[in-house]
Amino acid sequence: MRTRPLKVALLGCGVVGSEVARIMTTHADDLAARIGAPVELAGVAVRRPSKVREGIAPELVTTDATALVKRGDIDVVVEVIGGIEPARTLITTAFEYGASVVSANKALLAQDGAALHAAAEDHDADLYYEAAVAGAIPLIRPLRESLAGDKINRVMGIVNGTTNFILDKMDSTGAGYQEALDEATALGYAEADPTADVEGFDAAAKAAILAGIAFHTRVRLDDVYREGMTEVTAADFASAKEMGCTIKLLAICERAADGASVTARVHPAMIPLSHPLASVRGAYNAVFVESDAAGQLMFYGPGAGGAPTASAVLGDLVAVCRNRLNGATGPGESAYAALPVSPMGDSVTRYHISLDVADKPGVLAQVATVFAEHGVSIDTVRQQGKDGEASLVVVTHRASDASLSGTVEALRSLDTVRGVASIMRVEGE
Amino acid sequence: MRTRPLKVALLGCGVVGSEVARIMTTHADDLAARIGAPVELAGVAVRRPSKVREGIAPELVTTDATALVKRGDIDVVVEVIGGIEPARTLITTAFEYGASVVSANKALLAQDGAALHAAAEDHDADLYYEAAVAGAIPLIRPLRESLAGDKINRVMGIVNGTTNFILDKMDSTGAGYQEALDEATALGYAEADPTADVEGFDAAAKAAILAGIAFHTRVRLDDVYREGMTEVTAADFASAKEMGCTIKLLAICERAADGASVTARVHPAMIPLSHPLASVRGAYNAVFVESDAAGQLMFYGPGAGGAPTASAVLGDLVAVCRNRLNGATGPGESAYAALPVSPMGDSVTRYHISLDVADKPGVLAQVATVFAEHGVSIDTVRQQGKDGEASLVVVTHRASDASLSGTVEALRSLDTVRGVASIMRVEGE
Repeated sequence: MRTRPLKVALLGCGVVGSEVARIMTTHADDLAARIGAPVELAGVAVRRPSKVREGIAPELVTTDATALVKRGDIDVVVEVIGGIEPARTLITTAFEYGASVVSANKALLAQDGAALHAAAEDHDADLYYEAAVAGAIPLIRPLRESLAGDKINRVMGIVNGTTNFILDKMDSTGAGYQEALDEATALGYAEADPTADVEGFDAAAKAAILAGIAFHTRVRLDDVYREGMTEVTAADFASAKEMGCTIKLLAICERAADGASVTARVHPAMIPLSHPLASVRGAYNAVFVESDAAGQLMFYGPGAGGAPTASAVLGDLVAVCRNRLNGATGPGESAYAALPVSPMGDSVTRYHISLDVADKPGVLAQVATVFAEHGVSIDTVRQQGKDGEASLVVVTHRASDASLSGTVEALRSLDTVRGVASIMRVEGE
Repeated sequence: MRTRPLKVALLGCGVVGSEVARIMTTHADDLAARIGAPVELAGVAVRRPSKVREGIAPELVTTDATALVKRGDIDVVVEVIGGIEPARTLITTAFEYGASVVSANKALLAQDGAALHAAAEDHDADLYYEAAVAGAIPLIRPLRESLAGDKINRVMGIVNGTTNFILDKMDSTGAGYQEALDEATALGYAEADPTADVEGFDAAAKAAILAGIAFHTRVRLDDVYREGMTEVTAADFASAKEMGCTIKLLAICERAADGASVTARVHPAMIPLSHPLASVRGAYNAVFVESDAAGQLMFYGPGAGGAPTASAVLGDLVAVCRNRLNGATGPGESAYAALPVSPMGDSVTRYHISLDVADKPGVLAQVATVFAEHGVSIDTVRQQGKDGEASLVVVTHRASDASLSGTVEALRSLDTVRGVASIMRVEGE
């Protein structure tokens, strides 16, 4: 074994960073044996240097992250700051100064993944980011390496623990959105400002990363259709139950049937209770992958948290250190397929639509005609009348999002349709 | 991209081999883009050369596997023959002649993994075998690489599709073992001689491989305790249901509570219906992994079949080819921890014991005394009497296998115990 240690600079020492530092210290012998050389924590860049950090020697702590990555003797920079800047500049500087990078930064990877990969390649360095998607769950490596000889057609997953906790709570207790969110906040599952989670921004960033890797195509954050879950109601859950379904916020990356384009989208959807994703509880994550040869695979585990995310970071750290000792780099960006990313209108799925209609003869015929005119085939209809009003629930066969939108617009203009109570996609069948 | 192709020799062209050849041909452009150089099928060793093999040029086919691996221009040998010989000699010859090896051979890896890894290392070659365990499910790579910075404490899985199909059938239809086996055979899920599957030999080989990787320790096939599932009865399933459980054939690799030793075992066990492994249906496989930092992870997918196994083989082929272009090798054997493998007597779990006893006063006290004398603590007891006979079902708290064996031996010697109807371990709680 090489005795000269590999030097690691840690950028950020919050929930994840402190766990990375702790494991690097307590498991130093194991890491050395697995890598083939010791790894040494050479510096820790923080915002608040006065905070006491157990297990980290005070002389390692600095507020000058830039100086740390420019030291020139750093082998690997671990970036767990999050956000776009200063993380982006620090990572590109790290490459310029000869280091490889392990990052957990989904927002940055989703926005600037291509440029960062190019910078890594220019400097013969590695850029690994298993922790950026679904926390501890090995997902990037299986998609990028284990399935490298297969053709992935679909990646569909629960990739945000906060929203899964809220939806699971609504499902199991009948609570409304706000009540479930309040509980998630009280328990620390939701942040004070939950926008990034509940509006689907976090999941959309992960969808962009997953789609890019799965389809060997650059997918930018802007390419991902995004719909949050703040408007999911207890009534939606009741409707889902009647269909033998539950509701999950899903990130879905799909290759079109003709193979010539891909789509990526994030939205709440009904899925059958028999689907493996339906039983993913609490803040857990799970990702379902469908490929030509392997068939259906699922990966399940904790999607966030200090220790789980640190596990993923350290797995990458070991790999990057091994590569460095080998004088090699791991697989870089693979975007050779360069498939076009289709707009949301081209996405095809089934829909569950609840309408408030007048309870009089001819309404069903009118509504059915609108669906037919837009080429949307109806699977089931359920009508329930009361005091001159009626609710009409329509579940469609597979149709494009554009056709469905056209249908809904036309329905709204019917006199007999008082309102469109909800539209929800139905997945996983 | 390099234009000179990497040359692949395929040993075996059965269910898996023919799929490997098919995908190499139909996805040649994708593989080339992902590897960075084209890959060429340079030869296919078969037993029956006269068989027509669609998509494989007849001039590539040979019966002389030895000559093929000795050609000297082969970059990667893909071994999908199975069994110990001639596979072992062909693999070591391949290393001697400068090739790396991708194998799907669980029996060989479980028996001779250490020697084969040493041979690979001696010749600076790779030995990859993702397909040897749980077919298409990425498992070896996640354990060996993604979790390389974590401490794995437990690997528990359904790693044999044939027996899961049979047990699932017994569970869902109330069928007996023989009836379910007959259906599995008729549907092609069980071989004409199902011994390797139903007696747990196949699962034990996989357990040895998984334990070795998870604990960085050599675990030989002989170290794995093995119990088949041929004696599981419809009555056992009825008992399991009463406990809110089902029965699965599990491979369990555990680190002892003090961390100083490991165990590996294969046997049928009751698991709660709420456990993710309980809902693994048909011939699917799933493996549950528990580690210090990541927590609980699960990997799910098809555990066998031509295309799924080929997917895993091709993932390895891409990795090995990339390594070759890099002039590097991937992670080799990691056995530095060299923990002792404890005998089955040291394994600790819970037990469900059904006794046929005389229905008279004092029997329960006698039975309870035997448990207490052996230090096995009782969780629940259920007694049902009928015509002077009674059945007594005891569920214990956690106890060592040795304590339980001593208890059962002592119970058998009691006059009032007519027989021990069944003993089954209870896992996953």
